[in-house]
Amino acid sequence: MIPSSLRWQGGAAGQPDAGVLEVVDQTLLPTRLAWIPCHDVDTLVEAIQSLRVRGAPAIGIAGAYGLAVAAGEAVRDGLTPEAARAHLLARAELLACARPTAVNLRWAVERLVGVLVQLPENTSATALAAAALAEARIIHEEDRRLCAAIGRHGAGILPEGGVLTHCNTGTLATGGDGTALAVITTAWEQGRRFDVFADETRPLFQGARLTAWELVERGIPVTVLVDSAAGQLLRAGRVGACIVGADRITANGDTANKIGTYSLAVLAEAHGVPFYVAAPSSSFDLSLDTGVDIPIEERAATEVLWPLGVQAAPELARAYNPAFDVTPARLITGIITEHGVIQPVTRENVLKMVPATKSRSPR
Amino acid sequence: MIPSSLRWQGGAAGQPDAGVLEVVDQTLLPTRLAWIPCHDVDTLVEAIQSLRVRGAPAIGIAGAYGLAVAAGEAVRDGLTPEAARAHLLARAELLACARPTAVNLRWAVERLVGVLVQLPENTSATALAAAALAEARIIHEEDRRLCAAIGRHGAGILPEGGVLTHCNTGTLATGGDGTALAVITTAWEQGRRFDVFADETRPLFQGARLTAWELVERGIPVTVLVDSAAGQLLRAGRVGACIVGADRITANGDTANKIGTYSLAVLAEAHGVPFYVAAPSSSFDLSLDTGVDIPIEERAATEVLWPLGVQAAPELARAYNPAFDVTPARLITGIITEHGVIQPVTRENVLKMVPATKSRSPR
Repeated sequence: MIPSSLRWQGGAAGQPDAGVLEVVDQTLLPTRLAWIPCHDVDTLVEAIQSLRVRGAPAIGIAGAYGLAVAAGEAVRDGLTPEAARAHLLARAELLACARPTAVNLRWAVERLVGVLVQLPENTSATALAAAALAEARIIHEEDRRLCAAIGRHGAGILPEGGVLTHCNTGTLATGGDGTALAVITTAWEQGRRFDVFADETRPLFQGARLTAWELVERGIPVTVLVDSAAGQLLRAGRVGACIVGADRITANGDTANKIGTYSLAVLAEAHGVPFYVAAPSSSFDLSLDTGVDIPIEERAATEVLWPLGVQAAPELARAYNPAFDVTPARLITGIITEHGVIQPVTRENVLKMVPATKSRSPR
Repeated sequence: MIPSSLRWQGGAAGQPDAGVLEVVDQTLLPTRLAWIPCHDVDTLVEAIQSLRVRGAPAIGIAGAYGLAVAAGEAVRDGLTPEAARAHLLARAELLACARPTAVNLRWAVERLVGVLVQLPENTSATALAAAALAEARIIHEEDRRLCAAIGRHGAGILPEGGVLTHCNTGTLATGGDGTALAVITTAWEQGRRFDVFADETRPLFQGARLTAWELVERGIPVTVLVDSAAGQLLRAGRVGACIVGADRITANGDTANKIGTYSLAVLAEAHGVPFYVAAPSSSFDLSLDTGVDIPIEERAATEVLWPLGVQAAPELARAYNPAFDVTPARLITGIITEHGVIQPVTRENVLKMVPATKSRSPR
């Protein structure tokens, strides 16, 4: 049984039955399943920055619940309505900046702020907490439905042959069954049978640790490979389609996703294998024209030089560690959204499927 | 100071000052430098199969010394000339089969056997040991010179810009300064300055553990990246050339090398970056027409699923773990040999540079 990556336990923060946000500590999987209670925003921000909770949709939802956590802080501290509101806005900015690449995080936080600032100025901290929790729950439930729709649309177009995926885009990465991984599991549940291959996804092994774990838990056989073996696997004709998620998609269809996605897209094209991106409209950022404008997070050298905490390089070695890369639209066969499949991936088709009014453009 | 990957200490096996083959246990680097004495062939075969000694030229040299080790066994066991010869032939086959892909191993072992079977039938085990050691030392010394020549030829054609390499092709992989890595270090010693990038080279991290260690020891700054980040690095324009080694090159120039080499070659081509292979003529197998005939070793799933001994995937996950892949000649800009550079890589140019009589075709 695969748990959601996060859950709100109990009532609204500040209520008599005060609740708490809990997130799965994904850094401990696949060997241990443990929940982290986030009684304060600092704990949640640390969890997001350390990738204890990760995946673009999931950190969006976490950010939304984070405002409820922030409101709980205001209640505990006995803040006045005015102070509570200022506190929430400050915490919102902290949450939105926790990671830069996935657009879902800032979008969700700003959606929450938008709801809260429309409440009367004398709204108590307790009432703000209830409103924040209610809106976060809506976003969470929306994402669940988006995942199901993406799974259905994707399963409908999945070609014959093995499927190769990168990083983790399943239950752990979203509020529902996932994006790219939902396509795979939905097709499987529809009775189709095919080889599922998971890139291990260095440096943090989300493919080996998380995707393989989710598939094993669902009873779907999975074969893990080192990222650099993807070329050989494609060349051997064992892959009918590659399918990945997205952290941010710009108006022209360029897609930022986990480092290695771009390499895989180039390899897929070289072998004539279709390359799909699966993402909800919450991952589109129509305020950006192309992928060159997407901020790419660079992470600590230790992720590369000390895999799983073990020293793998001499102390004086440096590291190049971009957490994401950008795959140009021309390498993407189609983008599977909750509304349907954008194919071919052109600016016109993106705007048709994800109208600007619906997109989650921040600010 | 970088040690050779292997050394013969003391006199010939079976002599009063009986010597011993020692190999660096490369699985312990970069945190520990330890030598394994190989008093018997079983120890050496285990060291080769476990990649304690690795690199196509180095395992060729190890295989040659292995015959001296085998002769030492015959001396210790007091075998008759006839029994000693039979023992050597049996051990030779064991050594030659220790790993299947690099052609150097079987070539070197068969060269030793060729020398030994030409000795009179009543040659004692002690004399066989002396002859084996003498020939192994010649091969070792030859390789040292080949590496130096490869370094010179390669440095002469290395274009401007950063250099990206894969796996380890340095002192640890050869009997001298290396192949691809010798090109880099030779250019550096000539006073040229450029960024050196090392793919970490999953599953066994030879790039991070060994290449970075060699470069740091030489005082050459090195930046390690996960293999799947190579596409992003190339796209960012930070690489002027890719250069790798080879485990076996067929008559048409197809090249088997560490898994991930093929992916890198496709990516280099996609970005218009030259892709060089550096290898001595001992790595050519002109008995094979193209790369499809090269046997590719599949290694244990644990290498993928338990990186550095730490569990990274659920127990029921499977693994795809080819140790090598084959890069077609059309993706290779040039092959740097001790005789010069084969460019463009065509069958005619291969045969011109590496005449069949000089090639190390086994059998």
